[in-house]
Parts: sequence; C-alpha cells; structure tokens
Amino acid sequence: MSPFAKRTSDSVASLGEERLIAAIRRWLGSATPPAPHGIGDDCAVLPPSKRRQAITVDPVIYGRHFDDQVPPRAVGAKLLKRNLSDLAAMGAEPTAAVIALTLDPRVSIVWLETFYRGLAACARTYGVPIVGGDIAQADGVLAANLTLLGQATGPRMLLRTGAEIGDWIYVTGKLGGSIAGHHFSFKPRLAEGAWLAARAETLAMIDLSDGLAKDLRALTPKKAEPSIIAKFVPISQDAVRLAKKTGRTPLAHALSDGEDYELLFVVSQNANHFAFERAWHRRFKTPLSCLGHFVQLGHRAADTVELGKFHGYEHLR
Amino acid sequence: MSPFAKRTSDSVASLGEERLIAAIRRWLGSATPPAPHGIGDDCAVLPPSKRRQAITVDPVIYGRHFDDQVPPRAVGAKLLKRNLSDLAAMGAEPTAAVIALTLDPRVSIVWLETFYRGLAACARTYGVPIVGGDIAQADGVLAANLTLLGQATGPRMLLRTGAEIGDWIYVTGKLGGSIAGHHFSFKPRLAEGAWLAARAETLAMIDLSDGLAKDLRALTPKKAEPSIIAKFVPISQDAVRLAKKTGRTPLAHALSDGEDYELLFVVSQNANHFAFERAWHRRFKTPLSCLGHFVQLGHRAADTVELGKFHGYEHLR
Repeated sequence: MSPFAKRTSDSVASLGEERLIAAIRRWLGSATPPAPHGIGDDCAVLPPSKRRQAITVDPVIYGRHFDDQVPPRAVGAKLLKRNLSDLAAMGAEPTAAVIALTLDPRVSIVWLETFYRGLAACARTYGVPIVGGDIAQADGVLAANLTLLGQATGPRMLLRTGAEIGDWIYVTGKLGGSIAGHHFSFKPRLAEGAWLAARAETLAMIDLSDGLAKDLRALTPKKAEPSIIAKFVPISQDAVRLAKKTGRTPLAHALSDGEDYELLFVVSQNANHFAFERAWHRRFKTPLSCLGHFVQLGHRAADTVELGKFHGYEHLR
Repeated sequence: MSPFAKRTSDSVASLGEERLIAAIRRWLGSATPPAPHGIGDDCAVLPPSKRRQAITVDPVIYGRHFDDQVPPRAVGAKLLKRNLSDLAAMGAEPTAAVIALTLDPRVSIVWLETFYRGLAACARTYGVPIVGGDIAQADGVLAANLTLLGQATGPRMLLRTGAEIGDWIYVTGKLGGSIAGHHFSFKPRLAEGAWLAARAETLAMIDLSDGLAKDLRALTPKKAEPSIIAKFVPISQDAVRLAKKTGRTPLAHALSDGEDYELLFVVSQNANHFAFERAWHRRFKTPLSCLGHFVQLGHRAADTVELGKFHGYEHLR
C-alpha cells in the first residue's frame, strides 16, 4: 500500500492536527493511557522507578526501512520491536514509549491508521504503554522515531563490555536472510535477555542489528579477536535460500546480513557451560549456539572464521 | 549556512557511521556521560527515580523550523529548549535526553558540528545529560527529534486540567512577534514552572507554543470561556514592530503568533492573588500578567477579547 493518498480528502491534511491527534488516540485504543499518563498534556507523567532505567530510540523511515510493499501494520510493529530488542540486549523490560511522527500532509489516513493499529497491537502484546509523542510536517517525508524507556528486570543490566580472552561466544536463534521476512516477523528476545541478565555467568550482550561480523566487534575485548567455528554458526533457511540467488555462501549471509534481532552474548570461561546450556533448554525453545571464544589478537586457529572478510550493514554509505 | 556540503569530502558521508558517532561524542564533550550512561551501548542506563517522571518529544526540521539563515548553534539550542519548555509547563526538571537524527548523507560536517556544539552548550547550561540517540539516513532530509525525560521538582506536577469558572488566568513574559528572534533566543521558564508547581494556588499550566488564543483552549474548563481584558495582554516590542509591517494589530500578533515559550497558568479564585503576585515579584524579574478569568460560556463581557477571532498556529495546513 502506498502511504500517500491520491485524493486530498483521504490525506491527513484533510483532518488537520486536532482531529488527527484524536484519531491517533482512537487507533491506539487501550495501548495509550488517559492523560496525564498518556497523550494530552505538555508531557506524559510516568511513575517513579525503583530500578535503574534504560532508554533507546530507533526510527522507521519510508524509502529506507519500508516501502509500498510492506503492510503498514508490520511497519508499526517493527518500530516498537526494534526498540524492544535493544532493551532485551540489556536484560531490561519496557515501561513507556513516545513516538515522534514526521509526515507529508499527503500521507493517507488509512495507511496511518493501519500503522498505528499495528503498533498498538504490538504494544499490547509486550505491555508497553504509548504515552505521548509529536506530529511534525515535512514535505516528502514519512518517518517515525520511537523512544522507549525501560527498567532493569533485576539487580543487573548487561552491557557490551565485560568479556575477556577465553570467554565463550553464544548466539540465540538462526542467522541471515532476514530480508526475506524475518526483519518484520521477529520476536524481540525480552524473556531471554532478562533470564541472561539474571545468570551470573553471562558477562556481556548485544542484539544483532547490523550482522554478527560487525556487531561482535562491540563485545570483543581489547587485544583480542573472536575465534569462531564456521559449522557452529546457526544458519537460517532464509540464508540458505538467499545464497542460491546471490551466489554468496549461506555463512556469508548469516554473518553479514543484519536485522537478525537475536542476542549475541558472552559466557564466562569459568562457568559450567554445560549446566548453563541445560538450564537454557529447560527454560526456552529458542535455539542456542556456542560459536567459539575470544583469543589473543593474532592467535586465531587457521580453521576458524576470518570475520574481517565479512562486512555487516554500514550506515551512511 | 547551508546544511548541505558542496563537496563529498565535507559531508557526513565521507565520515561513515562509526567516525560520525565518535565525532558527535567529541562535539558533545562533557554534555554526554561515558557509556553505559551515555552513547555506546544498546541503551543508555539511567538511575532510578524516586519522584514521578515526565517525558516529551519535539523536533527541529530543515525547511520547517529552520533554514539556511539560522546559525546551526541556535538550531541545536532550540531543539533542547523547546522540550525544556514542556517540562517547565509541568513544573518538572530535566534528567536525560536522547536525539534521533535523520539526515541526508550530503549534510555538511561543519554544519552538524556547530549544531551539536550549540546543543551541548545549552545542555550544560540546563544540566541535561545527552545520553544517547540514533542516526538514520534519508534523502533530502535533515531533522532531529529530541526526547526529554524529567522528574517532578516537588510532590506535584501541574497539568492542563484543574481550572474552574471564576479562576484567574496569568501569563509570564511578553507575547507576539517571536519570529523576529525570540523563538530562538527564549529562555525556558524552568525555575518559574517549578515555583508555580510548589504554590498551592496554581491550578493548571501550559507553555505557549501555538499562540495564546489557541493554547488557552486547553486550560479552559467545560461550559466556560476565557474573559480577557485586551489592555492586560502583555505585548512584546517585536509584536508592535511586526504589526507595522503586517497591518494587523499588535494584540493580534500577541494572541496568535505562537512560539512565545511563556507559561500560561491558572490561579485559584480563592487565593489571595495580590500576595501571590508579590511573592512572584520578590522571586523573579520575569514579567507576570493577570489577563482575566474564566466565565460561564456565553457570559463574557462585551468589552473583553473575542478570542475566537484569533487563530493560533495550525499544524498540517
């Protein structure tokens, strides 16, 4: 569906600001609490938080993150889910979201309604109140930025730092070929992230957005490099199918496609990692793979993956 | 200064994502704390909050809120200040900000640096840590959305609701003609807002962004209307000067220009409002005006202002 209306009467311009805001509240329904805890005052009022909090922001932009082929419901859900994935990577849980919408006055009402209904359904699934936002006009643009506030699920939040040489590298799910649909259908790993933050053997974590080859750099300790066994990398069926078209290997897709929204994390070399894996499989059906470990820079075995050959998603190119 | 570079080597595209993020951290300097409390992890980690919190989001967009004539420092400062004004309207104080940047790869590095340095200087002035953000690419766009988190300065936050027929209408500062420069040079009324939230006689408050004629509607009780005396409306010198050019009255500019970023608030009819005004003037040099009060709908005196004649700023037109 094109986000732009053919007739002015079908566009947001025909509503004007006040009626558009009223419509958005209607579309969000129970996903937005009444003012002042939701839309309608200068700010939204939020409760105090006894735990440490986490905040993140990510957009969806027409022509960049979606096009006419993507159902607007899926765009709305993805906007929230990609932010939820960032909270999952800290072992945090969501508490509130605000949305800044930037739109051309010709954007169609029906597109926007479906977008907000998709967002609302997702917000209800994950228990995220949409508490406020802003609407701004800009010619030729359709973009939404969602800021997500969350809080720790326990005493600890997991950071990207903390790994040392010798520690194990794990990943959830299957990787690669996300463009075939997973980048809209994925489930943010909130339960897994919270569980991992509560386990002392987990040292560091990140969510996979730009591809393992790139994102793993953020977890890698100084003067170290990852030593990863190719056959341990969990390759999705979508990566296998995509490889047949592109002529690249399924492994290359798994390592560099991006938008996997899986958790990549580090388990201490001192942990009993068999016990850790058993505990995981008792709790989750989500696949878990140990890819290898960190070694001193230059000490990677010859039969391990040369990650430098694979490039993740590079922004601003 | 045009935000777009003539040569690719002067554009953000020449930096790429990683070096751009490093540059932004450098430009923000002490305004951004080290990770995980600032830029660099999946989320920024924030402390717990014992008080109730408030959250708001507002953008600056090229071609809409600024153009080549506006110094980028002023754009950066305004982005933060317009959000601070929303917190002021609740009587809240800022605790953290995140910025979502949407930009064309041709945006010039020097423009962006000056924008961030202006933002950082303003963030230091008001004690707001810039804790994180996002950078996304979109052709032909230069926009920044800032989400601001804050907390109550005392037991109470002031809402837009709470006024009744008979209560007094007050405004800070002087109104109108903001386009001449005030919309960039204004000071968000944080101290005034906090003071008002602590005074029991203040019932409701809003900040003036779309013009008094429009914004006052949000404070007006049901089945009531404002009864305002024209000569009590504080008119800025800029409104007087602008009126000479436009042929409209200075009052019309004061009531409908928008972007005053002053506080419009309601004081209880049961309060001693002489004592209230004395206390204000002991504490602040900021002008304070009592404009009138709320009356039953249809009971406005003939010599009061017919606000329906004046239109504030309408979005999406």
